[in-house]
Amino acid sequence: MDYQHIIEKLEHKISKLPKTGKVANYIPELQKVNPDKFGLHLSCVDGKDYAFGDSNELFSIQSISKVYTLALAKEIVGDDLWKRVNVEPSGNAYNSLTQLENENGIPRNPFINAGSIVVADLLLSVLENPKDDLLNFVRKISKDESIAYDERVAESEKATGSRNVALIYYMKSLGNIKNNPEAVLDFYFYQCSLNMSCKQLATSYKIFADDGKLSGTNHQVFNNQSVKRINSIMQTCGFYDEAGEFSYRVGLPGKSGVGGGIVAVHPRQFSVAVWSPKLNDKGNSSLGMKALEELTNLTGLSIF
Amino acid sequence: MDYQHIIEKLEHKISKLPKTGKVANYIPELQKVNPDKFGLHLSCVDGKDYAFGDSNELFSIQSISKVYTLALAKEIVGDDLWKRVNVEPSGNAYNSLTQLENENGIPRNPFINAGSIVVADLLLSVLENPKDDLLNFVRKISKDESIAYDERVAESEKATGSRNVALIYYMKSLGNIKNNPEAVLDFYFYQCSLNMSCKQLATSYKIFADDGKLSGTNHQVFNNQSVKRINSIMQTCGFYDEAGEFSYRVGLPGKSGVGGGIVAVHPRQFSVAVWSPKLNDKGNSSLGMKALEELTNLTGLSIF
Amino acid sequence: MDYQHIIEKLEHKISKLPKTGKVANYIPELQKVNPDKFGLHLSCVDGKDYAFGDSNELFSIQSISKVYTLALAKEIVGDDLWKRVNVEPSGNAYNSLTQLENENGIPRNPFINAGSIVVADLLLSVLENPKDDLLNFVRKISKDESIAYDERVAESEKATGSRNVALIYYMKSLGNIKNNPEAVLDFYFYQCSLNMSCKQLATSYKIFADDGKLSGTNHQVFNNQSVKRINSIMQTCGFYDEAGEFSYRVGLPGKSGVGGGIVAVHPRQFSVAVWSPKLNDKGNSSLGMKALEELTNLTGLSIF
Amino acid sequence: MDYQHIIEKLEHKISKLPKTGKVANYIPELQKVNPDKFGLHLSCVDGKDYAFGDSNELFSIQSISKVYTLALAKEIVGDDLWKRVNVEPSGNAYNSLTQLENENGIPRNPFINAGSIVVADLLLSVLENPKDDLLNFVRKISKDESIAYDERVAESEKATGSRNVALIYYMKSLGNIKNNPEAVLDFYFYQCSLNMSCKQLATSYKIFADDGKLSGTNHQVFNNQSVKRINSIMQTCGFYDEAGEFSYRVGLPGKSGVGGGIVAVHPRQFSVAVWSPKLNDKGNSSLGMKALEELTNLTGLSIF
Repeated sequence: MDYQHIIEKLEHKISKLPKTGKVANYIPELQKVNPDKFGLHLSCVDGKDYAFGDSNELFSIQSISKVYTLALAKEIVGDDLWKRVNVEPSGNAYNSLTQLENENGIPRNPFINAGSIVVADLLLSVLENPKDDLLNFVRKISKDESIAYDERVAESEKATGSRNVALIYYMKSLGNIKNNPEAVLDFYFYQCSLNMSCKQLATSYKIFADDGKLSGTNHQVFNNQSVKRINSIMQTCGFYDEAGEFSYRVGLPGKSGVGGGIVAVHPRQFSVAVWSPKLNDKGNSSLGMKALEELTNLTGLSIF
Repeated sequence: MDYQHIIEKLEHKISKLPKTGKVANYIPELQKVNPDKFGLHLSCVDGKDYAFGDSNELFSIQSISKVYTLALAKEIVGDDLWKRVNVEPSGNAYNSLTQLENENGIPRNPFINAGSIVVADLLLSVLENPKDDLLNFVRKISKDESIAYDERVAESEKATGSRNVALIYYMKSLGNIKNNPEAVLDFYFYQCSLNMSCKQLATSYKIFADDGKLSGTNHQVFNNQSVKRINSIMQTCGFYDEAGEFSYRVGLPGKSGVGGGIVAVHPRQFSVAVWSPKLNDKGNSSLGMKALEELTNLTGLSIF
Repeated sequence: MDYQHIIEKLEHKISKLPKTGKVANYIPELQKVNPDKFGLHLSCVDGKDYAFGDSNELFSIQSISKVYTLALAKEIVGDDLWKRVNVEPSGNAYNSLTQLENENGIPRNPFINAGSIVVADLLLSVLENPKDDLLNFVRKISKDESIAYDERVAESEKATGSRNVALIYYMKSLGNIKNNPEAVLDFYFYQCSLNMSCKQLATSYKIFADDGKLSGTNHQVFNNQSVKRINSIMQTCGFYDEAGEFSYRVGLPGKSGVGGGIVAVHPRQFSVAVWSPKLNDKGNSSLGMKALEELTNLTGLSIF
Repeated sequence: MDYQHIIEKLEHKISKLPKTGKVANYIPELQKVNPDKFGLHLSCVDGKDYAFGDSNELFSIQSISKVYTLALAKEIVGDDLWKRVNVEPSGNAYNSLTQLENENGIPRNPFINAGSIVVADLLLSVLENPKDDLLNFVRKISKDESIAYDERVAESEKATGSRNVALIYYMKSLGNIKNNPEAVLDFYFYQCSLNMSCKQLATSYKIFADDGKLSGTNHQVFNNQSVKRINSIMQTCGFYDEAGEFSYRVGLPGKSGVGGGIVAVHPRQFSVAVWSPKLNDKGNSSLGMKALEELTNLTGLSIF
């Protein structure tokens, strides 16, 4: 497939689309971003890379980090993980308490906030230096030692994160949190604060496109079966209550964040990261969704 | 891939698994089935077929028919369909009224009962002889003129279908039903009453595995893009509130019915139908789910 | 207490209040009413009556009839009634299906639609000529043989009552409806269609103010204990999801209808009926609520 | 009325009833109580008192304190209170998060935990020494300077109160908590930890039976209208999701606590406190409910 040609056509198309939606504003740090930024980086498993726009600029990856922590937890804890969090799409907003109430504190899936907080709790029980260990892991699979947490973002999340405090104490009241809730949230907010570029994101997610192998090597970081399963969860749960819509339009597993980033994976073909800060009603990057839909149209590819 | 060898191994494995669960008992007709039946038929897009067990025996396909009506409606009505039904996983039981109440009578997706009733309503508006037209379509793609409705099942569903009456009148009260509710339900209950074998099901679903082409021909019944989209909906919504679990374990788009049948599709590889009447808690064939999980393990294939 | 003086002051106050809200418009018949009508009739247990405005004009009593059928059913069926309907305030809209779904088809109380439909079903099982028997009962306690159903209203309700069809079939699916749903709804819609005046309503409800005695006699129609209990249910459940607000502001048991009528009861003192067709957001007569609040302020009386 | 005779009959009846239910066990302190204790104290507005059993024994009043804080807040803040908390019955469990989610963080009423926490937050904003001020108030209206908080209970609640932490942070995330959540909860847990006897409770609640006057005096602590309104809220909301049942059976405004206490009020007649630690499914004293129902039967009195 002539990706170079496709990417050029895509860049042209995107340049003509209006930038609609609203930048996330629940913390001041996220609001400071230039709303008109747009970047895309596509990284093929055969080693070729294609990019345009602000693809090397750092932004707050937010919930995109939930896939990293899930993959780590799955690797360390194994299927016991699923006693604490489910794999079903949520059908509710990402931070709903109602569902927890109806389901005894077991979050619907690891990509809603409650689920990712449980994953953070699990990692806190098994990692020696959770923040460092996670950062080293992300740096390794992204092949970039410069990646860092944004402490201002993490602290700002902490200061405004009452809903997440409610979620964790509610799950604690139902027996599904084992560590100190404040320590868990500290780790959780730091993971969300990672600053990364489209290039770094696409590189790191290639591990999910390439059956668990570290990008450009034969080193099997995750086993093949685990990667298939994580991709499956991205497919059914990666976009809050717009997961079906993304699956329908784009047809690839993926994960979005309120910083405006989206990463998607075409197994055995490529990983692609896109960034545009303005969000639609559902909290997903508006232009990012359209760019990936257009990519599917241009390549004719989808997993279906 | 040596499917013959895989199918033999699968048959051996299945024979050793216990048959757990309970046959659907809400209508007497479904309860009459021999609970220990098991059949599987795998049909490759290259034309080869593999089968074992009771794969030629007829059973009530029930909700598996929802994919046929969706495909027809999508073909005829196009994307206007999505004004009347959504594509998001439901996160609730298949016949929940709560979700409808919260979402103004727009069903979550076309595979929950409410959604499929809306699809039936749409077809009633555009087909001349809805029951005949649907039957002819199913016969064509199954390459079998003997396929028929089971009137006793249809009438029995009608007699016990108070929940579905509630669903349709509730949607009517919210403006999402256009035809006479009783006519719509009559059509709906007939579509659910289709009697088919694993072989017929696998053959008919090959249209979704083969980019919309009629099995064994180059005749494009559905366009490529539509098929991708229907597969995507099967992936995220095909198994009631166990869709995530099926996606996680099997990694293929599929659809189940309370008659104990399941059909799954591996795009550009094969379609497979399995039948075992005993259902798990979620209303999906217990052994059928395990058989398809085992098939994934043995082939190493999944769309992820 | 000098009720004459109080009623005059009340009339003066009411005349200065704006008539806000909207006339019920879900059936054409209800919409035909003159929205500026206002009537009030207060009937003391000592035999005196006070009234002003359009207090002799007939209007559609709608849900105010639910107290009549409850009282009849309680009298005939006794406490077995409570196996089929609960006595808890609903906390939800009057025609919610969600609550039924969560509580196995047992309606929260006899004054939400679902509950009153169950009461109608109970009466259908025990009355010989349900419509005639109910009408005769209402005529007797209202001391007015001219009271009649409004067939156009009843038929119009039937034609637009999809939500109520949904409610009854849903309860039937859960085993809480024993008779033919259409016969039950027919009876239910007729009961709602009763045309009565404030005078007739106040007279009939005096039975609840006077410990069960027929107005102006010593004939004990209902026993004392039953009346206390029905008053208690009016107190906690008589105003849909505004029951607490009415109890807080007015402090009397009462029942409202979407025709704009409200009846309230001060045990051992009086019954009072008020009518003003414009409804607030919750479906209760806006000016009617205010009039009764003002009455409480002027008399200094409430049951608390 | 010959209360002495009634109380004797009641004592006799109670002695023959089985003590069913389970003592509250979510904190060790509550579990230490002797489950077979039973006390009752009835205090008439004319100054006479009647009692039997363990009516002078101290127990943890728990949610019965919610009426004290509501009355204080209503007195100080006035009707602005109702911008922060509603007066509708909840229809849900006392500590539900779902309802808050559906209603933007405004609790249904001041007697569910969320509502009482908002009341505590309001008091924290206006009282100089909240804990001391509340204690002094309770001592004054109970006419007993010995009343005290039980610090072990308060601290134990704090240690196990994850659900309440979830509630307060959730309301904070929706803007309905103004003070430091931990300070609010500290005050809230202390108010729940008050140790009082039936005698003290009945004496203090006489203020609600006697139109706001301090027991045995003409000192108007609360105005008449406020007291009517608080009684109304007790009537509709005093017993969690069993408020309708209590109103139906007993017909008096009242408030229960998980310590097994219940206080009820007959306006202008008496207040009555009963204590029996074993709770029914809904968290209300099982024998306490029966005792008050029996009292209603024996006196023939209810507000209806």
